[in-house]
Amino acid sequence: MEYYSKQISKLIEELAALPGIGHKTAQRLAFHILNMPVDHVQSLSDAIINARKNVRYCKQCFTLTDDEICPICKDPKRNHREIMVVENTRDLTAYEKTGKYEGVYHVLHGAISPMLGIGPNDIKLKELMQRLQGDVDEVIIATNSSLEGETTAMYISKLIKPTGIRVTRIASGVPVGGDLEYIDEVTLLRALEGRVEL
Amino acid sequence: MEYYSKQISKLIEELAALPGIGHKTAQRLAFHILNMPVDHVQSLSDAIINARKNVRYCKQCFTLTDDEICPICKDPKRNHREIMVVENTRDLTAYEKTGKYEGVYHVLHGAISPMLGIGPNDIKLKELMQRLQGDVDEVIIATNSSLEGETTAMYISKLIKPTGIRVTRIASGVPVGGDLEYIDEVTLLRALEGRVEL
Repeated sequence: MEYYSKQISKLIEELAALPGIGHKTAQRLAFHILNMPVDHVQSLSDAIINARKNVRYCKQCFTLTDDEICPICKDPKRNHREIMVVENTRDLTAYEKTGKYEGVYHVLHGAISPMLGIGPNDIKLKELMQRLQGDVDEVIIATNSSLEGETTAMYISKLIKPTGIRVTRIASGVPVGGDLEYIDEVTLLRALEGRVEL
Repeated sequence: MEYYSKQISKLIEELAALPGIGHKTAQRLAFHILNMPVDHVQSLSDAIINARKNVRYCKQCFTLTDDEICPICKDPKRNHREIMVVENTRDLTAYEKTGKYEGVYHVLHGAISPMLGIGPNDIKLKELMQRLQGDVDEVIIATNSSLEGETTAMYISKLIKPTGIRVTRIASGVPVGGDLEYIDEVTLLRALEGRVEL
């Protein structure tokens, strides 16, 4: 049975299709939108359309951007001989927020996952190998610390090693501020294996 | 500092302005939208605009609807002499979902709240009093069981009593399936006060 008018139901349904938005949240958002000033609603709707229509991949690093080449790839102050490989633009942003990384990035847009049928040709790996034909000193693999991320890291490192370029992987271990008591065994073992001299 | 391109930032900002959507969720939603097929994005955007533009208040009960008069007020099988007063359309829907209420509704669009500066003239109370000049047997006050809801209920009952129309209030008490151990004292006392003969 329909409890709402058609247009409200349609809006709720569209919102509920977004990830992490359940029916109740969609309902709350829909009623919020119905009470928003018309120009705010227009601006929300425009932002959705414009972002989807105008945002594309950077031709060099494949991050999402409005330009041909993203601001990071354009920046002459960055070290273009150091490439950090990440799974997606959100991961790139996470490292950018640290403000300490001075190299450039390469966004794979996914990770190898035999379970989901995602192979090496489904992510931007060929494009990474092409970039390595230029002057590159180091490739830092910063894929997630998940099964897929690790598989991808392993695959990439095997691919790059023959070229003689240095390949590194970001460290796994106990998060800063983490309480050992609440950390899973795999992470604890990783932290032990990766211990460093003091 | 800007970590994303302008259009992505704009989209994240618009989404983060919605209630219950923090920055992280907005970011996740934005990237989901950027990866959605263009026609889905168009349909989401249209749903937002259309709902806001075409949805209005029912002329009788003030619920949100696409028509002059909502389907419930139009339905001749409903008991139009019994009016349930609710704070908003979501509360109306909650009762509709029970499938057992056969009367009609009146949506106040708010509750009296001196704290927020919402007085009796800011909600659809005058409109309720006008409806009561027709043939009405009973007004069931189903405002929330919050301070504002109770204040509103009290106010409405005082307003209606002189007209001789029966005014009732939905019961407060322990929710069905509720474990007494986890229920607050005020609710427990209400449940005790409202006890019924078995």
